[in-house]
Amino acid sequence: MSGRTARRRVLRITLPGGDRPGGTSARADLLAGEEPLGIRVDGTALTMTMRTPGDDLELAAGFLVSEAVIAGPADVAGIKLCDGTACGHADHDGLGNIADVTLAAGVTVAPGARRNFMTTSACGVCGKASIADICVLPHAALAGDATRFAPEMLAGLPDRLREAQRVFSSTGGLHAAGLFTAEGGLIAIREDVGRHNAVDKVVGWALLGGRLPLSGCVLLVSGRASFELVQKAVLAGIPLLAAVSAPSSLAVELAEEAGLTLVGFLRGPSMNVYTGAHRLVS
Amino acid sequence: MSGRTARRRVLRITLPGGDRPGGTSARADLLAGEEPLGIRVDGTALTMTMRTPGDDLELAAGFLVSEAVIAGPADVAGIKLCDGTACGHADHDGLGNIADVTLAAGVTVAPGARRNFMTTSACGVCGKASIADICVLPHAALAGDATRFAPEMLAGLPDRLREAQRVFSSTGGLHAAGLFTAEGGLIAIREDVGRHNAVDKVVGWALLGGRLPLSGCVLLVSGRASFELVQKAVLAGIPLLAAVSAPSSLAVELAEEAGLTLVGFLRGPSMNVYTGAHRLVS
Repeated sequence: MSGRTARRRVLRITLPGGDRPGGTSARADLLAGEEPLGIRVDGTALTMTMRTPGDDLELAAGFLVSEAVIAGPADVAGIKLCDGTACGHADHDGLGNIADVTLAAGVTVAPGARRNFMTTSACGVCGKASIADICVLPHAALAGDATRFAPEMLAGLPDRLREAQRVFSSTGGLHAAGLFTAEGGLIAIREDVGRHNAVDKVVGWALLGGRLPLSGCVLLVSGRASFELVQKAVLAGIPLLAAVSAPSSLAVELAEEAGLTLVGFLRGPSMNVYTGAHRLVS
Repeated sequence: MSGRTARRRVLRITLPGGDRPGGTSARADLLAGEEPLGIRVDGTALTMTMRTPGDDLELAAGFLVSEAVIAGPADVAGIKLCDGTACGHADHDGLGNIADVTLAAGVTVAPGARRNFMTTSACGVCGKASIADICVLPHAALAGDATRFAPEMLAGLPDRLREAQRVFSSTGGLHAAGLFTAEGGLIAIREDVGRHNAVDKVVGWALLGGRLPLSGCVLLVSGRASFELVQKAVLAGIPLLAAVSAPSSLAVELAEEAGLTLVGFLRGPSMNVYTGAHRLVS
């Protein structure tokens, strides 16, 4: 069975030290679930991702937003999980691990689009080696979003994200992505073994609910900010991406190019603003 | 220019609190470098990964080991970085960002091999939804490795990895993979924005030096243990994979199937042993 978590017997070893005697004990441990999800578009296998089961349709929808295939709910004619009986394809295993997307008439996956399918480290691309080549985003796409954000509000978000994580506290193994209003109100949170999947789930949730673009919103991720997360935020129309940890060099370059405000090392009372500092009320 | 790090101007905001006045200051910050690397095999673009520049040939070689394309240095006839002048291909941008691999006679990338190219979240795969389908590893591949490891030795490795990280302390943004002897001696360490790339760099270094399989060794990763990291360790012949953080459910399942000892939450004096506890001297 697919599951967000899996229970597993584990041997816990503690070494002796100081007053502590040390010892070995067997106990049950909760693990973050990880399983492959295939994404099929108009009957053709498009990609596969290792993800934590749950919110799979949102994940598929968000992935397609992040790859600039779709931009609103009208671009999707249908989206369902294969249950192994009715879809008529032979490319799944009957475990409900295929998200089957039918695009609206006139919406297509461009032949070259696979070049952009590079969620973290993949995929059938080669030689697309400049920023302009690997990510064709509208220049300064977010420049028109004049929302301003208070650093005091941002400083409170990591605690709110952790509190809202339902699974993290039990497994210690899930990344989270949280969407907040400019006032710090929690709009949505999703978790996954992959940071990128957690973001795709949030963006897909927004798309399916007709909420794109996410103007005026903050997206907070629990780890680092990579190039791909910046790309996902920009394509969802989010003006501010905040990360608890460090951004990469390419993340900063792309954020600047797209007009995104990028905040890193958002911890305790301090934060680093890498780009778009004009959106921060000081 | 490609670089392991990039210097960037950043606005540091600290909120007032207690006796601290708070304030805003501009300063220079070091970022972890992130750039695409294309991997070309026998003249054909095979994949692309977002990586931290450096050790690129090792990364390409390790990637091919992890995908079961090559298993020893004799499988590689040549491997070089394209410098934009001599390779005769049009698929690069002249920045040295293509690793060009020529396989030895008789070694080929199987037509179906792309199905396994799923370093973290990719790639042109769909519908390969069971463990057996997505990762064809020899059953109990590591069962013959009778090396035993002391928990006391393992407990000391995270500190040694951190001390050895040259870049982490300056950017806070890089994952590390360290290869150690069964006695805890550091053999090799590599860093990258992607955990999987750091492991590929270590494995590629071993392959190019004729050191595979890495029997009797420990591989320590700075973050979580995913399915793919287990797969990489198994294909490199490493009997023990340790992670500072949590493993996923699929990582544990695959480790058990392959006979790998998987240790998670290796922190301070304690650790969780998920599989292969027989290798731990207690």
